[in-house]
Amino acid sequence: MRALDVIVKKRNGGTLTEQEIRFLLAGYVSGDIPEYQVSAWLMAVFFRGMTPEETAHLTREMIGSGDTIDLSDLTGPFVDKHSTGGVGDKVSLILAPLVACFGIKIPMMSGRSLGHTGGTLDKLESIPGYTIARNTAEFRRILAEVGYAMTGQSEKIVPADRLLYALRDVTGTVESIPLITASILSKKFAEGADALVFDVKCGDGAFMKSREEAQKLAHSLVNTGVSLGKRIVAVITNMDEPLGNMVGNFLEAEESALCLKGEGPADLMDLTVRLSGWMLVAAGRATDIEEGVLLCTQKLATGEPWDRFLANIKSQHGDPAAFQNSFGKARAPVQTTITAERSGYVGAIHAYSVGMAAVLLGAGRSKADDSVFPYVGIELKKKRGDSVSRGDELCTLFAETPQSMAAAVPLLRKAYSITEAAPASQQMIIEEISAL
Amino acid sequence: MRALDVIVKKRNGGTLTEQEIRFLLAGYVSGDIPEYQVSAWLMAVFFRGMTPEETAHLTREMIGSGDTIDLSDLTGPFVDKHSTGGVGDKVSLILAPLVACFGIKIPMMSGRSLGHTGGTLDKLESIPGYTIARNTAEFRRILAEVGYAMTGQSEKIVPADRLLYALRDVTGTVESIPLITASILSKKFAEGADALVFDVKCGDGAFMKSREEAQKLAHSLVNTGVSLGKRIVAVITNMDEPLGNMVGNFLEAEESALCLKGEGPADLMDLTVRLSGWMLVAAGRATDIEEGVLLCTQKLATGEPWDRFLANIKSQHGDPAAFQNSFGKARAPVQTTITAERSGYVGAIHAYSVGMAAVLLGAGRSKADDSVFPYVGIELKKKRGDSVSRGDELCTLFAETPQSMAAAVPLLRKAYSITEAAPASQQMIIEEISAL
Repeated sequence: MRALDVIVKKRNGGTLTEQEIRFLLAGYVSGDIPEYQVSAWLMAVFFRGMTPEETAHLTREMIGSGDTIDLSDLTGPFVDKHSTGGVGDKVSLILAPLVACFGIKIPMMSGRSLGHTGGTLDKLESIPGYTIARNTAEFRRILAEVGYAMTGQSEKIVPADRLLYALRDVTGTVESIPLITASILSKKFAEGADALVFDVKCGDGAFMKSREEAQKLAHSLVNTGVSLGKRIVAVITNMDEPLGNMVGNFLEAEESALCLKGEGPADLMDLTVRLSGWMLVAAGRATDIEEGVLLCTQKLATGEPWDRFLANIKSQHGDPAAFQNSFGKARAPVQTTITAERSGYVGAIHAYSVGMAAVLLGAGRSKADDSVFPYVGIELKKKRGDSVSRGDELCTLFAETPQSMAAAVPLLRKAYSITEAAPASQQMIIEEISAL
Repeated sequence: MRALDVIVKKRNGGTLTEQEIRFLLAGYVSGDIPEYQVSAWLMAVFFRGMTPEETAHLTREMIGSGDTIDLSDLTGPFVDKHSTGGVGDKVSLILAPLVACFGIKIPMMSGRSLGHTGGTLDKLESIPGYTIARNTAEFRRILAEVGYAMTGQSEKIVPADRLLYALRDVTGTVESIPLITASILSKKFAEGADALVFDVKCGDGAFMKSREEAQKLAHSLVNTGVSLGKRIVAVITNMDEPLGNMVGNFLEAEESALCLKGEGPADLMDLTVRLSGWMLVAAGRATDIEEGVLLCTQKLATGEPWDRFLANIKSQHGDPAAFQNSFGKARAPVQTTITAERSGYVGAIHAYSVGMAAVLLGAGRSKADDSVFPYVGIELKKKRGDSVSRGDELCTLFAETPQSMAAAVPLLRKAYSITEAAPASQQMIIEEISAL
């Protein structure tokens, strides 16, 4: 077999076999196939796409390139949720303890903020003492103790993804649905999940701006997951405005606590309960989404998920008391409140601008090795559809320095658009694609 | 400027500026831009194409990557012909001395056989003592003395083409019309030609199998040449059956001599005169192709082109007497004649099979460093449209060894198809695209 023939076959629109994909990926990882051939192949994939079977072969080969977490000594089912990334998206922090209360294990390998989106790990680490699991043994211990465990991606898990992503990043081949699919699925299945619920975000604050793109990715994730013999559901959700009222690391951890106590904002609560409901269906703990939603809503009312959250904090070396004592107080010192310049309705809060403002405040990263500030961020006091009078407070920004505040404020002013008429109502759930 | 942005712009269907193309090519040649980015860009070009202006920018940058031959101390006009390659195509050997008789200078930089097609240099070197010009000084001297000179591509001319071609060859990006165009034009214009006549071959024995492909290449060559401010004509010609009756190095040199003495086969004579006529038009020595053809036909009858050919042989260190003494005699020792198995008409002689048979006999190369045998080859005794009776001689093969003969014979048997009815007549000239 020659790499050239595999490139030409894909270039001409052919469907690659498992052997061909294995040959290419294994050769790339071993260094036998040079990067210039892999990048030509990636660009051919960009133009020609891949079938779900091809994407499944690629995913399997990527998983096989490194370690996988073996959870067979623990009692399942093992289910995880993955979001494609948004602004104010703290669903994982709420969903994990909620779903864990049903005896479902959630081995959650999360990411850090990059670009305009926040990262689950950064939010968790804003809790005093909280430490993400540093190795598989610890991950497994916490998972057994609390039912869910939080960790980052280790160097040893799917090394082929890091190699491929680095090459895609410099060759203009990032924006390829099958390559994105294989990258996401390989990491999720390597962590030991049997079933997955995807939150494919769509809109201004998402990576997928259009409904068509989001649908393509959602279908690709589901179809490829099915090819891999896994249980998958993908929920396409609106990400035009930030989720919930808080954007920033500690602010979002605090808002998650509110939700777990049943006091969270409606959009965040609804989405979390919906995705949690799907996890129950994926785990076989509910027969359909309606039952799943009902069970989750009832469970939240019991207070158990909040206790489970505190137990996880303790298990991950955090200080639940210090965390709770900081509620409403742990805010960066430089504060500015933006008010409405005219009366009307909040027609939109552009999530991308809010996300970029959060980065400027120091909640996120411009480069992978930037450090983040826990107490900076934005509190949204009015959301889309709210009526406002001139002078009403729209939002408050928390910054570490006047300079970062000065940079962020114009973005927030731009993010809010005040309209005369109330905006048409918007659905949070755009589409649900289930292969359960 | 970043290579990534140039890749993404092309990937998204954008038109690159002169600066962007210069940045990419210069960065590649200098090693500042890695091969994996260039190959991704090449694949994007494969899918998105390039405008004639973009192709002209690329051609100009490629020319600028190395030396060019400065002919300004000689009297022009300087015109060259280039064929995209076929089987039995010895037109250059006849056309160059013919056109030189009109005071037109032909600085001819030719190639060697590769794949199923023959190479002008290999044919010339089958003439005893003949040596292609080894440096620019010699090339210039011969050009001044005889009006035309024959050389190969030097290492110093268009080094970017060699680099790019080597990368295209292993990344599945050879078959791109704009990349083929820039490769051909850069070499031809670097050799000092002001005007060019292209013979774009089309059919079974050509690299462009379909009329559509040939037309695309012909138009790309002409449009790009116009963008470069050059005079260009492209003639699309049929290459379903071999050109003339001889295939093989010395066999073709001998057949060229016949043509120069007015005794060549009709298809070869007609095509040569047509392309020569276009060279006169390109050089401003004829007002239109009809006048060009007429002047060339008349010139052949004077015997001057044959004398010019002998003068070139002498100038290039060859032995005209030894050459002429070998006519009809210099044949490889193992000889096989194939006869018709039934009566009818020659419906087709598949040029690709004939070309591959010639390679097996040793007239061409399987690898670039193979050596070629001068006296092997195939004499076609019947051509398309000829009527044959069972047992008539179709062709004779000349080999150095019984083994190579045994390998070649089945290909020739397959190449001839005998039909009951006479085949429909076929046009040699398919289309002429002139920008003169």
